[in-house]
Amino acid sequence: MSGAPEDEGSGLLSTLNSKLSTVVEGVLAGRAREIGRAISAVERDGGAPEISRALFPRTGRARVLGITGPPGAGKSMLALRLAQALRRRGKTVGIVAVDPSSPFTGGAILGDRIRMAEIYTDPGVFIRSMATRGALGGLARATSDAVDVLDAAGFDVVLIETVGVGQDEVDIVKAAETIAVVLVPGLGDDIQAIKAGILEIGDVFIVNKADREGADRLAAELSMMLDLSPAHGWRPPIVRTVAPRNEGVEEALAALESHGEYLASGGEALERRRRRARARLEALLDERFRRHVREHAPEAEGLNEAALRVASGRDDPYSAAERLFSAVIGT
Amino acid sequence: MSGAPEDEGSGLLSTLNSKLSTVVEGVLAGRAREIGRAISAVERDGGAPEISRALFPRTGRARVLGITGPPGAGKSMLALRLAQALRRRGKTVGIVAVDPSSPFTGGAILGDRIRMAEIYTDPGVFIRSMATRGALGGLARATSDAVDVLDAAGFDVVLIETVGVGQDEVDIVKAAETIAVVLVPGLGDDIQAIKAGILEIGDVFIVNKADREGADRLAAELSMMLDLSPAHGWRPPIVRTVAPRNEGVEEALAALESHGEYLASGGEALERRRRRARARLEALLDERFRRHVREHAPEAEGLNEAALRVASGRDDPYSAAERLFSAVIGT
Repeated sequence: MSGAPEDEGSGLLSTLNSKLSTVVEGVLAGRAREIGRAISAVERDGGAPEISRALFPRTGRARVLGITGPPGAGKSMLALRLAQALRRRGKTVGIVAVDPSSPFTGGAILGDRIRMAEIYTDPGVFIRSMATRGALGGLARATSDAVDVLDAAGFDVVLIETVGVGQDEVDIVKAAETIAVVLVPGLGDDIQAIKAGILEIGDVFIVNKADREGADRLAAELSMMLDLSPAHGWRPPIVRTVAPRNEGVEEALAALESHGEYLASGGEALERRRRRARARLEALLDERFRRHVREHAPEAEGLNEAALRVASGRDDPYSAAERLFSAVIGT
Repeated sequence: MSGAPEDEGSGLLSTLNSKLSTVVEGVLAGRAREIGRAISAVERDGGAPEISRALFPRTGRARVLGITGPPGAGKSMLALRLAQALRRRGKTVGIVAVDPSSPFTGGAILGDRIRMAEIYTDPGVFIRSMATRGALGGLARATSDAVDVLDAAGFDVVLIETVGVGQDEVDIVKAAETIAVVLVPGLGDDIQAIKAGILEIGDVFIVNKADREGADRLAAELSMMLDLSPAHGWRPPIVRTVAPRNEGVEEALAALESHGEYLASGGEALERRRRRARARLEALLDERFRRHVREHAPEAEGLNEAALRVASGRDDPYSAAERLFSAVIGT
């Protein structure tokens, strides 16, 4: 392993290093087994810095697409259809399906998995479900790392699919270069509120289940909202799909590809990469800080002790947090 | 203001202190104008430590309830009905409606606001919408602080209502002592996945829109899932409601109150307060750390500079984050 310290005396270290190079070499060779292992490694709390560092120079080739939208919008089926359309064009596809709403069970998106079975047997497709296992923020970090693994493994396109439209999903899907927001007619008033929030991240809007009543109105509303939002160089197109019947899928893919060409043609590609990198660094720093707090909070000022003092009213949260912070930062 | 430094020479400081004591005194007197101001203050990045510290000794009296569930579950209407039922029992109610899915517009939950108008004119009810304005994590912190403001203002019950069921919403609603998870029949497969994730945080499950087809099946599925989950001292009841028609609302309230009695009767009340305090400290620490990074990252190692190096492939994210972290922490 390049970058790993040489240590003749340590059998364990050399075993670890040899394991590490097996995984890294396997990923670079595109072997499913090692790709899966590498993603499992980056999913852990703190990630797998050695693997990520080793793979990083081999990343940057894949086209990274994000798909987000409210539950019930049919994102998984759409992701499946987009993957199949990409396969017809001869592209290989890695899919990361992220579910931040399952922080406790660690359970993946079972229904989605079953539907994905249609392309499970295709070696040109790799599908991985991820769910929050560690702390908040870790999932966005892990998603970026998983995208790197698939990128380094040589997949032409990496699709990130999220469940839901909260801030977590926004942070996760921001690891993509081009983001499709999938909406669906008739999900009620709450969706109206959500639409306002995700308007800013959509590069392409997809009205799925467009055979349902209300599709015209939804598309018209979206169009109006886009008219009202500040103009950039790119006007997000609105595409209608009926994913199960494969209607509009080619058009959706074409819209996603147009946005890629737009990014590449102007100066926005680097700026967007910088923004993605910044978000990624922030996620890494947050996670690193939490580890530091766990490791370095002096016993008497430990989080649990401080929490108990606050819970029993002996200390207010702000004073307790400030004291903990000073102890940890060492100022 | 107790705790504020005396400084004869500073007119500005004494003006600030006098403003601060006006707000704090107004909140303690239960005046809507100052309650609103205090919540606006805690919503800002970093919160309002002086206000929160001053109010903290007067908190701990209110019963804090949380309501969460997927978009379209009818949470707002249910919150309205619960508030009305509480009012009939002579209780005053503060409501914090939190929407983490609107991070960009800062827009609040407009539809909900309109529906809430039914009780807007009641001085025994205070309603406040909040949306993410600052960094991720700040909203959970601000929600806890807003709950403190309403608690100190003397509201008997504080209701936290969230939109969505992501990790953010989970973190936000954890500021409550008792959490109601609201579900609704017929929202499709994605909801099945979500249910698994929120099973663990529900103290009470509410099947809303229970006059719809599929309500029986949903209740039966929930019951089965609860059978399979590890037994604690409390088995979450499942209550059916049709909020617009006010059906089942008294039963839902009774279930929420039973859980309060359960908490108070055993040793779990303090443990739950400790957990809430711990989550709150973590949120405060994270926010504090982000400010520290902004203020102390050396120019050459600043976040933007580092992000640009990563974006252009000159540095990998892990090495860049580690270097930034060392520079900030000073190790």
